[in-house]
Amino acid sequence: MRLHLSTWTEVELHLQKSTGIIIPIGSTEQHGPTGLIGTDAICAEAIAIAVGTATQSLVAPTINVGMALHHTGFPGTMSLRPSTLILVIRDYLTCLARSGFTKFFFINGHGGNIATLKAAYAETYAHLADLNVPNFERIECQTANWFMSGSVYRLAKELYGDREGSHATPSEVALTQYLYPEFIKSGTLAPHQSPEYKILGAADFRRRYPDGRMGSDPSLATPEHGKQFFDLAVKDLTASYLEFLVSE
Amino acid sequence: MRLHLSTWTEVELHLQKSTGIIIPIGSTEQHGPTGLIGTDAICAEAIAIAVGTATQSLVAPTINVGMALHHTGFPGTMSLRPSTLILVIRDYLTCLARSGFTKFFFINGHGGNIATLKAAYAETYAHLADLNVPNFERIECQTANWFMSGSVYRLAKELYGDREGSHATPSEVALTQYLYPEFIKSGTLAPHQSPEYKILGAADFRRRYPDGRMGSDPSLATPEHGKQFFDLAVKDLTASYLEFLVSE
Amino acid sequence: MRLHLSTWTEVELHLQKSTGIIIPIGSTEQHGPTGLIGTDAICAEAIAIAVGTATQSLVAPTINVGMALHHTGFPGTMSLRPSTLILVIRDYLTCLARSGFTKFFFINGHGGNIATLKAAYAETYAHLADLNVPNFERIECQTANWFMSGSVYRLAKELYGDREGSHATPSEVALTQYLYPEFIKSGTLAPHQSPEYKILGAADFRRRYPDGRMGSDPSLATPEHGKQFFDLAVKDLTASYLEFLVSE
Amino acid sequence: MRLHLSTWTEVELHLQKSTGIIIPIGSTEQHGPTGLIGTDAICAEAIAIAVGTATQSLVAPTINVGMALHHTGFPGTMSLRPSTLILVIRDYLTCLARSGFTKFFFINGHGGNIATLKAAYAETYAHLADLNVPNFERIECQTANWFMSGSVYRLAKELYGDREGSHATPSEVALTQYLYPEFIKSGTLAPHQSPEYKILGAADFRRRYPDGRMGSDPSLATPEHGKQFFDLAVKDLTASYLEFLVSE
Amino acid sequence: MRLHLSTWTEVELHLQKSTGIIIPIGSTEQHGPTGLIGTDAICAEAIAIAVGTATQSLVAPTINVGMALHHTGFPGTMSLRPSTLILVIRDYLTCLARSGFTKFFFINGHGGNIATLKAAYAETYAHLADLNVPNFERIECQTANWFMSGSVYRLAKELYGDREGSHATPSEVALTQYLYPEFIKSGTLAPHQSPEYKILGAADFRRRYPDGRMGSDPSLATPEHGKQFFDLAVKDLTASYLEFLVSE
Amino acid sequence: MRLHLSTWTEVELHLQKSTGIIIPIGSTEQHGPTGLIGTDAICAEAIAIAVGTATQSLVAPTINVGMALHHTGFPGTMSLRPSTLILVIRDYLTCLARSGFTKFFFINGHGGNIATLKAAYAETYAHLADLNVPNFERIECQTANWFMSGSVYRLAKELYGDREGSHATPSEVALTQYLYPEFIKSGTLAPHQSPEYKILGAADFRRRYPDGRMGSDPSLATPEHGKQFFDLAVKDLTASYLEFLVSE
Repeated sequence: MRLHLSTWTEVELHLQKSTGIIIPIGSTEQHGPTGLIGTDAICAEAIAIAVGTATQSLVAPTINVGMALHHTGFPGTMSLRPSTLILVIRDYLTCLARSGFTKFFFINGHGGNIATLKAAYAETYAHLADLNVPNFERIECQTANWFMSGSVYRLAKELYGDREGSHATPSEVALTQYLYPEFIKSGTLAPHQSPEYKILGAADFRRRYPDGRMGSDPSLATPEHGKQFFDLAVKDLTASYLEFLVSE
Repeated sequence: MRLHLSTWTEVELHLQKSTGIIIPIGSTEQHGPTGLIGTDAICAEAIAIAVGTATQSLVAPTINVGMALHHTGFPGTMSLRPSTLILVIRDYLTCLARSGFTKFFFINGHGGNIATLKAAYAETYAHLADLNVPNFERIECQTANWFMSGSVYRLAKELYGDREGSHATPSEVALTQYLYPEFIKSGTLAPHQSPEYKILGAADFRRRYPDGRMGSDPSLATPEHGKQFFDLAVKDLTASYLEFLVSE
Repeated sequence: MRLHLSTWTEVELHLQKSTGIIIPIGSTEQHGPTGLIGTDAICAEAIAIAVGTATQSLVAPTINVGMALHHTGFPGTMSLRPSTLILVIRDYLTCLARSGFTKFFFINGHGGNIATLKAAYAETYAHLADLNVPNFERIECQTANWFMSGSVYRLAKELYGDREGSHATPSEVALTQYLYPEFIKSGTLAPHQSPEYKILGAADFRRRYPDGRMGSDPSLATPEHGKQFFDLAVKDLTASYLEFLVSE
Repeated sequence: MRLHLSTWTEVELHLQKSTGIIIPIGSTEQHGPTGLIGTDAICAEAIAIAVGTATQSLVAPTINVGMALHHTGFPGTMSLRPSTLILVIRDYLTCLARSGFTKFFFINGHGGNIATLKAAYAETYAHLADLNVPNFERIECQTANWFMSGSVYRLAKELYGDREGSHATPSEVALTQYLYPEFIKSGTLAPHQSPEYKILGAADFRRRYPDGRMGSDPSLATPEHGKQFFDLAVKDLTASYLEFLVSE
Repeated sequence: MRLHLSTWTEVELHLQKSTGIIIPIGSTEQHGPTGLIGTDAICAEAIAIAVGTATQSLVAPTINVGMALHHTGFPGTMSLRPSTLILVIRDYLTCLARSGFTKFFFINGHGGNIATLKAAYAETYAHLADLNVPNFERIECQTANWFMSGSVYRLAKELYGDREGSHATPSEVALTQYLYPEFIKSGTLAPHQSPEYKILGAADFRRRYPDGRMGSDPSLATPEHGKQFFDLAVKDLTASYLEFLVSE
Repeated sequence: MRLHLSTWTEVELHLQKSTGIIIPIGSTEQHGPTGLIGTDAICAEAIAIAVGTATQSLVAPTINVGMALHHTGFPGTMSLRPSTLILVIRDYLTCLARSGFTKFFFINGHGGNIATLKAAYAETYAHLADLNVPNFERIECQTANWFMSGSVYRLAKELYGDREGSHATPSEVALTQYLYPEFIKSGTLAPHQSPEYKILGAADFRRRYPDGRMGSDPSLATPEHGKQFFDLAVKDLTASYLEFLVSE
């Protein structure tokens, strides 16, 4: 049940059953010569909608642009600064908390968002207490990174070993191939590099990872793998969300 | 050509042909008892993608949450504060301008965004000059409100007269019915009120417009109307965008 | 009754009769080779004081510097960034609302302020609700642009046709000539250009409009015209203000 | 030579002779039952204009609202927060420094502005260096408090002794009486209190100083005194400004 | 070599040998009924100074107050909001980077700082690039959490098993006992709870963890343990820092 | 009684006796070729702890980095911008005020902090009122500059005359020599300059005061002087603090 496809009266009714909401957050950033710029948002959104369906939960609109400053040396990348993203999260949750929502489950598609999201939750908890929003002391946020869920991680290792790498990975590329088979890209990849993980500023990133990948080999991706990843992620996160809803 | 479905190498190539980009911006706000909360984002995104196809232009990801503070008295509404939205626009355009983009065409689905967008452009022009971004003196933003384009406006008047109203209008509801026929909602509407236009804070808005509509009668909407609005909007905005690209 | 020429005890008494206040806002920006840099503030202040007298209303001190970033390529121009102006408006209205004022009538002399003012009102309504200021739900702001009032607009068209232009217009220059006859300036104007309206950043503005005017011919202005404009503006805005005070 | 009554071409010429500018800054705050709310702005502006005339210097528009948070318990008081005032000063000086001004002489009418102005200068020096504004390393700000100039201070002590107090003083009230003789107010003052100087928050201030004065007896003020203060202040600050202009 | 005990000329010389600097960061927050409020700062500072000595490196002054909003329900806790801490880090590193430092090694004593520090690094990298600080593309920050270093972690598990818990742990308490034996506190602890890790807002934290501890049993701590932890941490972080300095 | 060496339960008890707290604030800035970069923090902290002991008062952790933007032309200097320092103070006091503290006594070691601290107090008083923190109307801050206390000032004049100067003074250097005799530095000082006091931006400061001192001769300092200064400062500030605690 997507918030965007609901009416406010439906939301009002829904809140009587559940005060949880799923918020997909991705990024708009280069994913190497063959990965889609929207990979992180596309994956997060698709999984979020499926989890929403499985749990009859509301799904908020996707945060399409996240914290990707280190990728801004590549054209097409868009990023919020962390301080801006904190304000965005604060504004979102202030509205939703006043509507009556108390449990915010962020399905996240981008590792670079994790730290800022965590900082934003702390900032927001304090802000909602300052505003004395009803039930502020019960507000709870959780980040669910689909690519780090147990079964997804295991399958990626099994299929790709250390060629999974850590950016523009075959697993996320596979997932977008499954979702958008008509947008499977081909391109020349530089020879495989052993994984390295240092992430500093944008200029350094481009120098260090000239075609944008970080130790990954996305040529291994297939749409069939993508389907597997999708199904596992939806299953894992459905379980996580249900657990989150009842946890205290 | 959606930015999200492109690679950075494709964007790099594209920039050699055109430095324009289309950015859809909507809102996540109540649209009366029968209008979708995502109406403004849904309409802006669909039109933007069609204009992008017609002009072979890049289309950025949709800004799903805009300036809708006055609607926050209704559950499900989400809003950025104007000062946050200014930062978001500034961050977006700083990234894109450094990538080489110079012409930003915002296809907007929500009247409440117009003023803040304009303020954000001014803030951004100055910011880019401060940063001495290449070509900063040629950066140009334009807001294209699909619902105010000439032929759309005329059709709405012709079909609905003063029952078009100014929020949760039959024209925008029709457009969402065309795009999402499986999500056509029914519901009881209060008797028609003559249009009023005052918009103050959220509490006042809810008191003044108890079911969320502003002088509109969305029960007049049909998916067929929606198709007409869609086609007219795409045609109008395609022309506007092409003109924008060549204007100096 | 100017706030600056009142005591706090007089304000306290006045609030028992009326909770409205007039706030003049102008700009400090180039107005072509013969227009005063203070034109927008001078006009707004003079009209506001006259409206205040006509309505026995309080008039706040003038906001002398507004949003004029696009004029900052010309020496002597001063501007706030939009984000700063929003904070200024928020701070002003927070104080005044806590004093008991509820109706804020901005008499504005500068087109460039309009969008940011509107954004600032939205930001402020939400801020006052956050602070739970007494009567926050009844706070109301309105922008009254003297140069866009009906009779002023008609007279300008009648006297100057399309030589009115859109910046450093003969109508506003005339008004300053009426108010400050000893500061009527002469200077060489470039040949008349047909009006153009594009406003981007400061560098672009100076390139596009080399002497600062936008399609206007201020040499047509006379102090006598200025008196006519003044009288019409005061009459129009007096009516608007009275209507604003009783509107709900 | 008031900036507001000049054209940009005159400013351009003037900058060839002098890169100094005088900026009056006041406040909009209660001044006891008989003092004008605009006292600090009125005094600063009048003195600034006279110093400008005496030195053929440019005078910027007055900053009418300063840092008066502690007075906001009295109706009619308006204040910026210190953090907002810092941004305002930063925005002003960024524009003027880019125009070519390097010496900023703030003629100040309100003790409560002093600290924030000093903080704002430091913030601005660093900001202008960040922006690499031409001549940023020569930018210089100075605060000139007319009420603390030597001869003014001596006359106040001579005329009023410790009844000068520290807020709503007879000296500043006298100055406004000289400038606005038609707005001389009468009112009942509570019995004289010995001076106390503690200034905390607004609620505390109102409790501590119930009618707004701080140990002052403004009933001693006369317009004739006001003329004396005015002449002394103009003389003192003219000398200070000339010294400031040539200092290195 | 503590920065505070050096002169600027010594720093200038030192920069010719090394452009690295160690920055201790702690927190000022409740650590249960028997743990010191300064635990995190005390530990980080002592370890940082020892690592500085071992490596002949400069050690900056300690950031005593970090991100501890969730502990603010207990008296004596002090916290920056994440958005403030980001600005603090940005200001610190801007100064130091302009001095010539390029490698920033944060020795951290508080888990709650980790996310905000990471966000702050990203914000700062972009800020330094915006400012075009010399060598901005080589600036590098690293967080070294002493309590998560390999040998420390192993010893804690060995000594305390799951009674290490996750806040007010015996390992950190032991370290402060070693450093400040005269401040070993006694107090009644509630019965041991099995570890739980949820951290939301301040009110929830106090409700969930009534005496401030999170599944820990600090009564197991001894000064002798503390010495062991200290030595292990210094050894581990000395190695990490040396590796960091030569890494590219 | 240092806050860092207390437990939260001790603080809770302490608050029943006294709601005052001492907060040392220094700076991290060049102090000439022979003065320690940490001079201002070292002095403030040592004096604060001694005053705390003498008065059985709580002493918060030291603010090690203050407002020293004008010193940032010398390597090793660290500074917050004034706007950041205001936020830091606001965050600190919000936490402490919510804990129950009402009297904040800042023992300050750096002249450059004074103005920003004062601005920060005003900002904070208003913020605490906005938050409706219990007892917000009784919150009180005071700055105690040890180097300006009566007896310290007199001794400095007596010992050094005008060679005390105003930065990197022999009195503060002496105090650090007393506290850290093993860190007494030697170095060549340029010939004595007569005192000058102008402080603008960082580039100007370095040009004007090439080795960092302002008219001071720190070679006159001795550890014995330092002890005298320390004892006088502790005595003076102990008296001031006790007076502050009982003042209303």
